[in-house]
Amino acid sequence: MTTPVYLDCDTGIDDSLALLYLLRSPSVVLRGIGTVSGNIDAATAARNTLDLVALAGHAVPVAVGEHDPRVGSYAGGAPHVHGNDGIGGTALPRAGEPEAESAAQMLVRLAAEHPGELEVLAVGPLTNLAAALDLDPELPSRVKRVVVMGGAAQTSGNVSAVSEANIHNDPEAAAAVVDAPWDVVLVPLDVTLENRFTEEDQSALLDSADPAARAVGAMLDQYFTFYQGVYGFRGCALHDPLAAAILVGEIEATRAPAVPVVVDATGGPGRGQTLCDLRHQRSGTADVPGAHVRVVLDTDRPLGPVLRARLVG
Amino acid sequence: MTTPVYLDCDTGIDDSLALLYLLRSPSVVLRGIGTVSGNIDAATAARNTLDLVALAGHAVPVAVGEHDPRVGSYAGGAPHVHGNDGIGGTALPRAGEPEAESAAQMLVRLAAEHPGELEVLAVGPLTNLAAALDLDPELPSRVKRVVVMGGAAQTSGNVSAVSEANIHNDPEAAAAVVDAPWDVVLVPLDVTLENRFTEEDQSALLDSADPAARAVGAMLDQYFTFYQGVYGFRGCALHDPLAAAILVGEIEATRAPAVPVVVDATGGPGRGQTLCDLRHQRSGTADVPGAHVRVVLDTDRPLGPVLRARLVG
Repeated sequence: MTTPVYLDCDTGIDDSLALLYLLRSPSVVLRGIGTVSGNIDAATAARNTLDLVALAGHAVPVAVGEHDPRVGSYAGGAPHVHGNDGIGGTALPRAGEPEAESAAQMLVRLAAEHPGELEVLAVGPLTNLAAALDLDPELPSRVKRVVVMGGAAQTSGNVSAVSEANIHNDPEAAAAVVDAPWDVVLVPLDVTLENRFTEEDQSALLDSADPAARAVGAMLDQYFTFYQGVYGFRGCALHDPLAAAILVGEIEATRAPAVPVVVDATGGPGRGQTLCDLRHQRSGTADVPGAHVRVVLDTDRPLGPVLRARLVG
Repeated sequence: MTTPVYLDCDTGIDDSLALLYLLRSPSVVLRGIGTVSGNIDAATAARNTLDLVALAGHAVPVAVGEHDPRVGSYAGGAPHVHGNDGIGGTALPRAGEPEAESAAQMLVRLAAEHPGELEVLAVGPLTNLAAALDLDPELPSRVKRVVVMGGAAQTSGNVSAVSEANIHNDPEAAAAVVDAPWDVVLVPLDVTLENRFTEEDQSALLDSADPAARAVGAMLDQYFTFYQGVYGFRGCALHDPLAAAILVGEIEATRAPAVPVVVDATGGPGRGQTLCDLRHQRSGTADVPGAHVRVVLDTDRPLGPVLRARLVG
């Protein structure tokens, strides 16, 4: 029994870790990957994705998704975080070409082919998912659940005081996704920033016999340099891999109440914030009746060792 | 050496605790008290304040302040929290009359009389402080510091998912106060909700020989009933008393970085939020250069026993 998965990503260094982790996880099978502008533009993200999939010895269809967010235009990504090519200047062998369909079309098709079974993992801005909801209003009834790396519940953001990059890069799309009637699992900075790779993990990747493991190990140089300014030491957050491991089930969300979540899509200072109503959590109440978005606030164990074991092989 | 203090309040049950605490603290002297609509309307808050001051054996001038927030009108307070009279139905002996001047005029006058020495403690909506800034643009240079009970930095709000009542009741005024060039100490829900009175504290107050202590002990019935829904047990948060104890110096703010703070005064879902930019705290950096608002995130010891000792006498 393997779970069919559609991955939506903006590859991206931590996207690369998540992608390789998913390819190496026997309980899931990637049926398709769509890319979106975020860490890097959608076309380059598709290039990076195709190359890493091939280097890992796999073949997964990749579709280029939306270049621009729903409002405004793509602002150029985060080269200070992920490098000018999105993967820290790591040269990957060129391999394959993207599909003719768009990412949104791919998602709609896969949901129709695997009704009630397809799980969606979104680790970039939610533009493609919002476009898919426009294409097929019945999409929520066909998708089993949507796991999203994004937002900040009770910790600071990473783009503004309160907003996280994936949501901030397309708040209108994020609002459409959390408002749609499907089960969403939000994996916010609150937990992703607590799960880290260190230089020891990088060394293990670089020493691997596996070329894909060595490639993601090499990417970490750029990422560690950025995160030195965040953490005060060389290491990195495991944003996208944590969402992947929660989807796979290797990491369990031990505290993930279903609560009302609103995305701030105003032009105000809170633009891009995920307002998670956790007020009732103070008295120990778990789920808010009717809420369909779970916000992950605690997990059962650190992801680092689990991820390293899968990637090093 | 006693510190001259202007108190701005919306008395209120926890305001009453803070007021009695200040009257019983030898290192500060209350030079004047202004009231504002919040927990209860400004006029009733002045009545409650005058009566409690007299019952405590003190004489402090009380000025009625703004009834309505800067935008819109007073929405009727929080009778489910503080009772229909603001003090949980506790009948206090009637005593004294408010001053002819407004709260804003009183604050401006006291700052001029104690230049560089006056400390302001604001435990209600910030309407009067904003009005005082309008009356006297030089006010910030004359006030030593402003301690505000308000906001939520990294915890949920108590009015909305992200906003705390004092700020939410007049976001435009709060924005004016945090934007003005004076030193502000923000005491948010993050710390006030962690400091509590229990039924044991209430019993000690009710058993006191002091009529003012017994009166605030009686008020706690109403407050405890509300907080049972928040905490799951009978007890209450010590919002306003914590801000008072930090001003007095009996409680030390052990973690209170100076950071950029923006109040959301939009009409969006984040209206009334205090957006505290704590991103740099992740790497252990303390103060952000140029920031003049300190956000209290940790204190040295629980307030409960300290407050109880002062109030029981």
